[in-house]
Amino acid sequence: MIIVMASREPEDIRRVVAKIEELGYQAHLIEGVERTVIGAVGDEGTKERLQSLESMPGVEKVVPILRPFKLAGRELKPHDTVVTAGAARIGGGAFCVFAGPCSVESRDQIVESARVVKAAGAQVLRGGAYKPRTSPYSFQGLEEEGLALLREASADTDLPFVTEALTPEQVPIVARYADIIQIGARNMQNFGLLKAVGREKRPVFLKRGMMSTINELLMSAEYVMSEGNPNVILCERGMRTFETETRNTLDLSAVPVLKKLTHLPVVVDPSHGTGHWDLVLPMAKAAVAAGADGLMVEVHPRPEEAFSDGAQSLKPIRFRQLMDEIGPFLKIVGKTL
Amino acid sequence: MIIVMASREPEDIRRVVAKIEELGYQAHLIEGVERTVIGAVGDEGTKERLQSLESMPGVEKVVPILRPFKLAGRELKPHDTVVTAGAARIGGGAFCVFAGPCSVESRDQIVESARVVKAAGAQVLRGGAYKPRTSPYSFQGLEEEGLALLREASADTDLPFVTEALTPEQVPIVARYADIIQIGARNMQNFGLLKAVGREKRPVFLKRGMMSTINELLMSAEYVMSEGNPNVILCERGMRTFETETRNTLDLSAVPVLKKLTHLPVVVDPSHGTGHWDLVLPMAKAAVAAGADGLMVEVHPRPEEAFSDGAQSLKPIRFRQLMDEIGPFLKIVGKTL
Amino acid sequence: MIIVMASREPEDIRRVVAKIEELGYQAHLIEGVERTVIGAVGDEGTKERLQSLESMPGVEKVVPILRPFKLAGRELKPHDTVVTAGAARIGGGAFCVFAGPCSVESRDQIVESARVVKAAGAQVLRGGAYKPRTSPYSFQGLEEEGLALLREASADTDLPFVTEALTPEQVPIVARYADIIQIGARNMQNFGLLKAVGREKRPVFLKRGMMSTINELLMSAEYVMSEGNPNVILCERGMRTFETETRNTLDLSAVPVLKKLTHLPVVVDPSHGTGHWDLVLPMAKAAVAAGADGLMVEVHPRPEEAFSDGAQSLKPIRFRQLMDEIGPFLKIVGKTL
Amino acid sequence: MIIVMASREPEDIRRVVAKIEELGYQAHLIEGVERTVIGAVGDEGTKERLQSLESMPGVEKVVPILRPFKLAGRELKPHDTVVTAGAARIGGGAFCVFAGPCSVESRDQIVESARVVKAAGAQVLRGGAYKPRTSPYSFQGLEEEGLALLREASADTDLPFVTEALTPEQVPIVARYADIIQIGARNMQNFGLLKAVGREKRPVFLKRGMMSTINELLMSAEYVMSEGNPNVILCERGMRTFETETRNTLDLSAVPVLKKLTHLPVVVDPSHGTGHWDLVLPMAKAAVAAGADGLMVEVHPRPEEAFSDGAQSLKPIRFRQLMDEIGPFLKIVGKTL
Repeated sequence: MIIVMASREPEDIRRVVAKIEELGYQAHLIEGVERTVIGAVGDEGTKERLQSLESMPGVEKVVPILRPFKLAGRELKPHDTVVTAGAARIGGGAFCVFAGPCSVESRDQIVESARVVKAAGAQVLRGGAYKPRTSPYSFQGLEEEGLALLREASADTDLPFVTEALTPEQVPIVARYADIIQIGARNMQNFGLLKAVGREKRPVFLKRGMMSTINELLMSAEYVMSEGNPNVILCERGMRTFETETRNTLDLSAVPVLKKLTHLPVVVDPSHGTGHWDLVLPMAKAAVAAGADGLMVEVHPRPEEAFSDGAQSLKPIRFRQLMDEIGPFLKIVGKTL
Repeated sequence: MIIVMASREPEDIRRVVAKIEELGYQAHLIEGVERTVIGAVGDEGTKERLQSLESMPGVEKVVPILRPFKLAGRELKPHDTVVTAGAARIGGGAFCVFAGPCSVESRDQIVESARVVKAAGAQVLRGGAYKPRTSPYSFQGLEEEGLALLREASADTDLPFVTEALTPEQVPIVARYADIIQIGARNMQNFGLLKAVGREKRPVFLKRGMMSTINELLMSAEYVMSEGNPNVILCERGMRTFETETRNTLDLSAVPVLKKLTHLPVVVDPSHGTGHWDLVLPMAKAAVAAGADGLMVEVHPRPEEAFSDGAQSLKPIRFRQLMDEIGPFLKIVGKTL
Repeated sequence: MIIVMASREPEDIRRVVAKIEELGYQAHLIEGVERTVIGAVGDEGTKERLQSLESMPGVEKVVPILRPFKLAGRELKPHDTVVTAGAARIGGGAFCVFAGPCSVESRDQIVESARVVKAAGAQVLRGGAYKPRTSPYSFQGLEEEGLALLREASADTDLPFVTEALTPEQVPIVARYADIIQIGARNMQNFGLLKAVGREKRPVFLKRGMMSTINELLMSAEYVMSEGNPNVILCERGMRTFETETRNTLDLSAVPVLKKLTHLPVVVDPSHGTGHWDLVLPMAKAAVAAGADGLMVEVHPRPEEAFSDGAQSLKPIRFRQLMDEIGPFLKIVGKTL
Repeated sequence: MIIVMASREPEDIRRVVAKIEELGYQAHLIEGVERTVIGAVGDEGTKERLQSLESMPGVEKVVPILRPFKLAGRELKPHDTVVTAGAARIGGGAFCVFAGPCSVESRDQIVESARVVKAAGAQVLRGGAYKPRTSPYSFQGLEEEGLALLREASADTDLPFVTEALTPEQVPIVARYADIIQIGARNMQNFGLLKAVGREKRPVFLKRGMMSTINELLMSAEYVMSEGNPNVILCERGMRTFETETRNTLDLSAVPVLKKLTHLPVVVDPSHGTGHWDLVLPMAKAAVAAGADGLMVEVHPRPEEAFSDGAQSLKPIRFRQLMDEIGPFLKIVGKTL
């Protein structure tokens, strides 16, 4: 921590130094031309408490120096983590496409979807059984019946599947059915839920919150990992901004930033990231070029009849086109489907 | 819903009209000079599905017309809701101050805090027993022990208290101890948690998410209310923006917007809203002037030693000053402490 | 500047220290448990160049310590600046209301507006002659004819007036007619324009950009002041965020932040800040309570016929109500109209 | 325009209909189950004035239906515009790289830079002579001397060059030297400047403001085009968000959105878009994949000594790597350098 003093009063500085030492750190002063700054050296694990020094007289601000994540960071583990689920591999040179409808709506719909995405080359089926909806009056998902239908579609196509758990109580049942447990954007800082999936063996698909920083995403991965589950897949799905042409603003620069900071695989969701089916293909290509380890894409047999997210879902023919068109890009970046 | 057509092809328009009618609505065409728009008239409850028409050929966009909340809205219930907890009344002309430390740290700290805020005129004690922390390595709260200490401090001062529940499982135990259950900003769209507190009798203190619109806040209140709990207190506590002088940007205009749209009481939290103790007093006054029904303020006996949020916590003497200085403003707006 | 090293390689550190010294600064090392930081001490004026060290091997980031404004800051000039224009005083305990239509539309409209706002107690007339419009096809203002009409209305009511200049070329002509020159939000970082008004004697009314930080606003004031014009009035008028209930998000916390950092007067514009006439009154009161030195309010004799910004303009009767209702708030904060 | 009524009072509706007709439009009513909406049909050019109806009693909101740009839109001109400058072609299948230092610092620096970027395959030299800087105390550019040095470097390498004009007065002199005139992000809505470059023959390189929507960018292009200059190149260079790992958030989805809406070429600037040299390469590739027509890249012979933007500038060796590595991506998308 660096404590920047607004005051040059020796008494103010002395008091801050004394408090730093009382809390078990060493204080190092640098007297600049216009400001005095005090570095606090010592155990990083508990240093966060020093933020409260900002309330002391004469202190202008307290600036943290270190990144607070450990297990998720490349410093401790330089090599890429590879997560596996069924035959699918995510990370470390493999490229994985997660595809399927927003919600499971019926047996026919999910089985048809699974066959479509399998035929086009996807490795993991996606589909929501428990749906987080802004309105309590919207379709909330088929719940456990949806999980059973996903399992059927999965067995039918031999594709592993990912689906979302919304509460800690749902985690065991979702873990019983699903190959990968998804934590949605709205739950990225639902710490009880993160701890619950951290205690499971299933890999975790962790979506970045729409107004969460990259640092916070890594701290949420740290929650899962610190409970004992190292298999976390990160997903960029768009942030909330002032722009209204797109549903969210897909932050593709998060891909190389994350690849630098963490060993965990990074997947991009251009469906939620843009909100419009005709933007999904170009952003899928851009995600491959930016270095992503995979894509999550919403596909629906008949988007105009979808219970949710129809505007951003691809028709089967468009999804096949996407899989065809990302092929040459994958070849250049040296990744294999 | 208004469907705006990009295409003027009769075939495209015919197809959209047919789909609207197939889904059970009437279609009304308005042919403008450059665009055709189609109004869909019918049952509002299920109209949301029409959004998926955006995936049809020739459709430019689908524009919703109606606000999706009902129970939380003033149209159905024009008169202000008044929530009560112990001797405290929130809404309808009463002004309520919720004060106390960010976290319960020890018996002495919470009892001292309770006495301080009581003496200064606060009506409800606040304090966190389960803490949502960005880092898994930060202090996570005293949990049930914290609840017991809050009850002690509450009994000692005869102040009701509010504290946060983080997961649906914690709701029954928090409801057993606390007078009001808080839903934190990060959980505003934790729909399982909203449903859980909606099934309790305790009033709910619902904080606006830092990434959430006013409309989404009202939809989250709707979740609680639609489960049977009408006692919801809304709280503006700052949104995330690009500005870094403040921890968040306190959106005080949310107060008059909410007072127009909803009958629920609206409280402002200038501590989280600004992140700096010296901005709490001016923003507290501004909140009163903007029409708020109450304030939530962080107060700590010794902010520089706080386990969390010390930089934004008031010392006892500052809190007394705040209570003194908001008095004349309350008088003008005709509210009573 | 604080340079944070990612690398602990002595060679990397040595190279950075050498470069710091080559550029004329002293380097002070603090070796922490996990990171080495290097403080660069020396002349603050030119220190900004050290940012480029971020491109050197082993450097994680470069953190500036000092605020870059001087003339606008309270450190050099602790006492409040009072700006005068005609009989109006802005800052230092005086409270000033700037009111009038968005655009000058005709002689009748501006004279009627001036009389209305004068009668209600405003001290400065506002009105646009050169209008910055998003579309080239929108009404662009009456230009010099508008200036002449403003002068007429000003003479008729004995109110000084403020109007916007859009380009450096317009500055002399605007300065010839107007008492105060406005720099609009879109031009807050139009540095050529800032320099041009800095060379004039007329006070400058500087609006914060809708996506500009408080620090950038003060740097823009610094541009004006460093050219020799100390009479700058700052105006908070709302920032751009994701919220759509309001046209912008009015950042009232900018008022106390600015009052702490600068001696310049701070005015709030609740008309642009909210975009809806019915939010203007509550936010005007809140601005007074937050410590603002004045208000800028859009008033139009017949808002539904306004060429621009009708939705946020007050009818005369509403403006009189506003002036009446802010009175008691001004009394509490000890300011006089 | 669609006028949504909050009120169902026949008198309120009658008054709005009368006002719509008074202003020269036809009114079409749709009575829904819970809301009445009124469509206003007529001349699109002047319809914007109907926004002011939002101030009438009983009106909830006024929703515009049509996009307000014409000349920039694909509806009027479906085929891609190709802009030429010297031997460089931008748009329509050609891919153009604009490269060079942030600022012209000296003859040696700019000539060396020009040779480096030419050798690596760039088609246009970039470099700032007039610099928009947040602080008046920062290096402001070499001004006309900088223009002369750019011409020298340009002549030496036979590369056309682009440089920024900050004020309308600078436009003629910049046009005399430069091949392409840049309008910087902070000036995207400097309408006087847009009109000035609209009256020139030189192509205009128009950067999206960091606070501006895609629609506003197109309206700014419309300003230039409506003055008679059809040669506008659009540039996405990052928006301002809450994320701090990058200097701005590069909105690559703006590329396909713009390609759909406009015939103008779209260039991406990954240097300003990210602010860190090590993110430039991955985002350059992603920009190609997303469909961009070119790149603007900051290159400096010795970034750690740059007067400005050193942290985001590429060393010559890195720029050559970038040019090499985008090659295969260009091949796939069918574009040629």
